[in-house]
Amino acid sequence: MATRNAFYAQSGGVTAVINASACGVIQTARKYPDQIGKVYAGRNGIIGALKEELIDTSLESDDDIQALIHTPGGAFGSCRHKLKNFSENKREYERLIEVFRAHDIGYFFYNGGGDSQDTAYKVSHLAEKMGYPITCMGIPKTVDNDLPFTDCCPGFGSVAKYIATSTLEASLDIRSMCETSTKVFILEVMGRHAGWIAASGGLAGKGEGEPPHVILFPEVPFERERFLERVDFCVKEYGYCVVVASEGAQYEDGRFLADAGAKDAFGHTQLGGVAPALANMVRQALGHKYHWAVADYLQRSARHIASATDVEQAYSVGRVAVEMAMAGKQALMPTIVREQSRPYRWHIGEAPLSEVANQEKKMPIHFITDDGYGITQDCRDYLEPLIYGESFPPFDDGLPRVAKLKNQLVEKKLKADFQL
Amino acid sequence: MATRNAFYAQSGGVTAVINASACGVIQTARKYPDQIGKVYAGRNGIIGALKEELIDTSLESDDDIQALIHTPGGAFGSCRHKLKNFSENKREYERLIEVFRAHDIGYFFYNGGGDSQDTAYKVSHLAEKMGYPITCMGIPKTVDNDLPFTDCCPGFGSVAKYIATSTLEASLDIRSMCETSTKVFILEVMGRHAGWIAASGGLAGKGEGEPPHVILFPEVPFERERFLERVDFCVKEYGYCVVVASEGAQYEDGRFLADAGAKDAFGHTQLGGVAPALANMVRQALGHKYHWAVADYLQRSARHIASATDVEQAYSVGRVAVEMAMAGKQALMPTIVREQSRPYRWHIGEAPLSEVANQEKKMPIHFITDDGYGITQDCRDYLEPLIYGESFPPFDDGLPRVAKLKNQLVEKKLKADFQL
Repeated sequence: MATRNAFYAQSGGVTAVINASACGVIQTARKYPDQIGKVYAGRNGIIGALKEELIDTSLESDDDIQALIHTPGGAFGSCRHKLKNFSENKREYERLIEVFRAHDIGYFFYNGGGDSQDTAYKVSHLAEKMGYPITCMGIPKTVDNDLPFTDCCPGFGSVAKYIATSTLEASLDIRSMCETSTKVFILEVMGRHAGWIAASGGLAGKGEGEPPHVILFPEVPFERERFLERVDFCVKEYGYCVVVASEGAQYEDGRFLADAGAKDAFGHTQLGGVAPALANMVRQALGHKYHWAVADYLQRSARHIASATDVEQAYSVGRVAVEMAMAGKQALMPTIVREQSRPYRWHIGEAPLSEVANQEKKMPIHFITDDGYGITQDCRDYLEPLIYGESFPPFDDGLPRVAKLKNQLVEKKLKADFQL
Repeated sequence: MATRNAFYAQSGGVTAVINASACGVIQTARKYPDQIGKVYAGRNGIIGALKEELIDTSLESDDDIQALIHTPGGAFGSCRHKLKNFSENKREYERLIEVFRAHDIGYFFYNGGGDSQDTAYKVSHLAEKMGYPITCMGIPKTVDNDLPFTDCCPGFGSVAKYIATSTLEASLDIRSMCETSTKVFILEVMGRHAGWIAASGGLAGKGEGEPPHVILFPEVPFERERFLERVDFCVKEYGYCVVVASEGAQYEDGRFLADAGAKDAFGHTQLGGVAPALANMVRQALGHKYHWAVADYLQRSARHIASATDVEQAYSVGRVAVEMAMAGKQALMPTIVREQSRPYRWHIGEAPLSEVANQEKKMPIHFITDDGYGITQDCRDYLEPLIYGESFPPFDDGLPRVAKLKNQLVEKKLKADFQL
């Protein structure tokens, strides 16, 4: 078997552990010097391939590659760029082949969500369509936890741990103060289409009256009056009310709460945020003192409170993607297969990219309590193992140590620049 | 020396480490059984004393008291209630004495910010004014870091570590994505009157172009055009711009940016938040893609990423407050005295409550760079040691373990209820 180079790219919104997958890919590839020459990483994802901006990871020391395990963000850059169908944008595929051919790339590893699995699948077809043999593997990643076939998605467990921990900690704060100060606290979390992340806030409490008292899911149409009644009930019954709200919370007609139609002093429409919108409802209707937080990128970059389970799974899908390629397989995505929840046991399986592409896994409706404001035991059983274990990064002078890569580009071999 | 009971209360906004001070007080008091009978904690702070709602901490096991070290929030409840001057509200002071006398309280430990030190000072005067001998100690606590005489305030170091870490982590996220996605990220942090917390975001980066690229301090009047120019410059020069904005950021005329005068769909004034206000400016003037986060209570309750230095100092001020009382001292607040910054060395000193009360320590102007958007080396030298060291809590099933106290109230001895 001839030695050929590999291309690896990160795609879409990054996570606290996508670099752990990169680490899995690169460290494993280094174990197969007879098959894999160099691993080139796309600078800013697939754009790096199109622009022939290839990072030579062979210039990075073993220690620096190891440090990827505890470095959030995307170490080589990521992008939001979806390859269209071959028929719609033949030019991009031709360019990819041109770059791959110029750098003798025989392996394509694409690390991302649903769109990226779709891209990986399309690239795997290049072999037939354009007479260029290339082994393609998708590597799952998404905080949205919405990929099919895999029990969970690398990246999600760490966000879940961050949100559950933050909800627990902030709730203790509110509870301390509610006698004379803040009575309602609203935490806005990610998840425009699915309530997985909001659900993870529910892990903070279990018993009657324990926070969070209200979870707002995108899956459950928002009813203003019922929400306000519930908040008021909690304040009267428990002294305070903690709300975890998905950014995707919406009215029955599909309007997002975040699009509250607010105008600034100049009459311009103001970008909202679910949390301030809910806070204003509470203020106007109930008059309770409130505070709100919007976790935004903090939640998906919080490597310092990553789930050890998630880190291990993220590494493993990277490792196995390479191993599958070495075994001569084609067009697969490693999946996480849950064997049992207690004690948690899992292994890596595989799914064909042809089936993964462009499917979305929704949160099962039996994961949400009948009143629409909480999570069921089934949901807990599913979520809990995903936040097990801590994987603290090393710290220097009080701050997490992160990988400092050289990220040196390979010399270009093609003359023409490519315009996206 | 006769055995008398002690009263301990938490006051004002809680922190990730105020319970470490409580732990220091209670563990130390347990070492002086001949002088201190029981430690009663005020339920919801000083209100607990006024209402005769006293928590009997002697019913808590040593293990549960030890667990306070890693439990955020205020374990006995806190409150925002400032005792007026003796002449203005004699009734409250008389009630305090009545409750203290009924429960033979000879020691008063009050754990809070500037207002609380003032209260502790006033109570220390009761001895003379009302013929009731009581030893009073203030115990410093505030994320605002604005108490005088002490080099820093317990609670601040952990917020600083959280904000510096979050800024670092989120910046790596933005940097990964800025080619095709978010270019401007705004993190709103606490600190209405002083920029200490905003300044701590500056620890995330050092070199030219390293994030955060802009810090907005309450101390520096906000200039819209200059801010937008700076943001645009960073996006063009570095590809992205990370902004850490104090909630207290304000225009030259004193208007807070958060009071942006936004109206919701019903024409009601909408509570802003500095981050969304800035985001809207960026959108309207520059059109860059942006994201924003508001850390709010997450930052002051984030015990999981507390500074070990801060935890130790918080414990120490509690311990020393009791030791000073045992040494027959009166009306003091333990302070943190910095001996040197590198390597960091500190010890506990003391300041008279008469001088501490109602003074505010401002951030020195030479801590802010000339352009008003960054921190100087002096500021770094001051801040860095405060975030040194990690003090991770124990975790159970993926979540931080927190103290579960019985918080059982002592039987009331007074007949009359007290109306606040």
